[in-house]
Amino acid sequence: MEVQIAVAKINKYASSESGDTLEVVERPNGGLSVVLADGQTSGRGAKAVSMMVVRKVIGLLAEGVRDGAAARAASDALYTDKSGKVSCTLNIASVDLETNTLVLSRNNPSPMFICHDDHIDCMDTDSSPLGVRRDIRPVITELELQPGLTIVMYTDGLTHSGKRRGQPMDVCNAIQAMLEDQEPTPQELADSLLAHAVNLDDGRPADDVSVVVIKVRPINGDTVRRMHLRLPLS
Amino acid sequence: MEVQIAVAKINKYASSESGDTLEVVERPNGGLSVVLADGQTSGRGAKAVSMMVVRKVIGLLAEGVRDGAAARAASDALYTDKSGKVSCTLNIASVDLETNTLVLSRNNPSPMFICHDDHIDCMDTDSSPLGVRRDIRPVITELELQPGLTIVMYTDGLTHSGKRRGQPMDVCNAIQAMLEDQEPTPQELADSLLAHAVNLDDGRPADDVSVVVIKVRPINGDTVRRMHLRLPLS
Repeated sequence: MEVQIAVAKINKYASSESGDTLEVVERPNGGLSVVLADGQTSGRGAKAVSMMVVRKVIGLLAEGVRDGAAARAASDALYTDKSGKVSCTLNIASVDLETNTLVLSRNNPSPMFICHDDHIDCMDTDSSPLGVRRDIRPVITELELQPGLTIVMYTDGLTHSGKRRGQPMDVCNAIQAMLEDQEPTPQELADSLLAHAVNLDDGRPADDVSVVVIKVRPINGDTVRRMHLRLPLS
Repeated sequence: MEVQIAVAKINKYASSESGDTLEVVERPNGGLSVVLADGQTSGRGAKAVSMMVVRKVIGLLAEGVRDGAAARAASDALYTDKSGKVSCTLNIASVDLETNTLVLSRNNPSPMFICHDDHIDCMDTDSSPLGVRRDIRPVITELELQPGLTIVMYTDGLTHSGKRRGQPMDVCNAIQAMLEDQEPTPQELADSLLAHAVNLDDGRPADDVSVVVIKVRPINGDTVRRMHLRLPLS
């Protein structure tokens, strides 16, 4: 079995700084966690908030703290720092090799999608962003790691796209169409969702957009861990 | 212009845990840093050491601390924690968008390679790993970010390969051959160096091996940030 993780991320049009922050961190007991945060508003202030949240979460995860506890701690820290006036969404997806599960934590009104082969479940239970109250907790879903599983998570820039023109993006339909027509790689799926959103905004994204796709599949080839990263410079 | 970063990483044969740790972290003033550490010996103890060093370094970098200061701090922390009895190599490669430079910090007897198109420089100034004395400092090289620049850095597993059979790997020659024959992508270069090392060890790596290749090139296509990660599960 192998896990593939793909990320596609673009800034709001004409904005040099993204309010979204994404980091991947190794878990001390095996596996890794993808941490994605979107700070309220955009630009430098939002970036500082999302970096603070992600830094707090990855620091705790690296010490072996459980995902739910890390999310609560980040919420309380943000609430204390900003007196409850600034919110930040948070998604954590962890490949946990201690339990052989995929653990999804969500503090984000935007849903996440869980696909088993081409069957899609939309996880849209009510979920509050971090920092707005004292008692914030994440919605947690734990799934067995097994081939055929695909997870899609994103920041709200994806669902905001097209709203300006009254044609908001239907993310579930877009994923369904991709999965039915072909067997996309995680990178193709992430790129295609992002491109769809950018198109709906006429090539000028109205918000920062980050899309993460995680796929579990039968192992294909060697046992080398690989990472590839592309950073366009303005 | 765009920066591409590729990593290939494999465990020592029959070892479920790698003593090498690699993380990528966003810099608070723009750009990112790749942090690679190799803890002394192998297995669980080495992993704990390299994770401790990398966690210390990325925590400091995320706060805006300069690379050299972060390396010194990690060395002092390791020295204090292990009374100078455990060493750990450290390489940091930072794409610094404040200064538009690539900053390379090395606390590793293994060299790094800097290639301008197909001309290769071997950076092998004496350099001590972290944690063995009080006054450890990194060797720092700062280069202008410009297309045609390729950096290769790795943990010593790469150069140890083949030693068992008296045929140690000549990394410089292997890079030269790749760069002259073709225009490899960073992933092809990293994969090929790793595969070469594994071959020299008859498919059973005698040590953990991590290879990082960073390439600066003219921008090709859109302005989307992308990341792709592959994690084989045993």
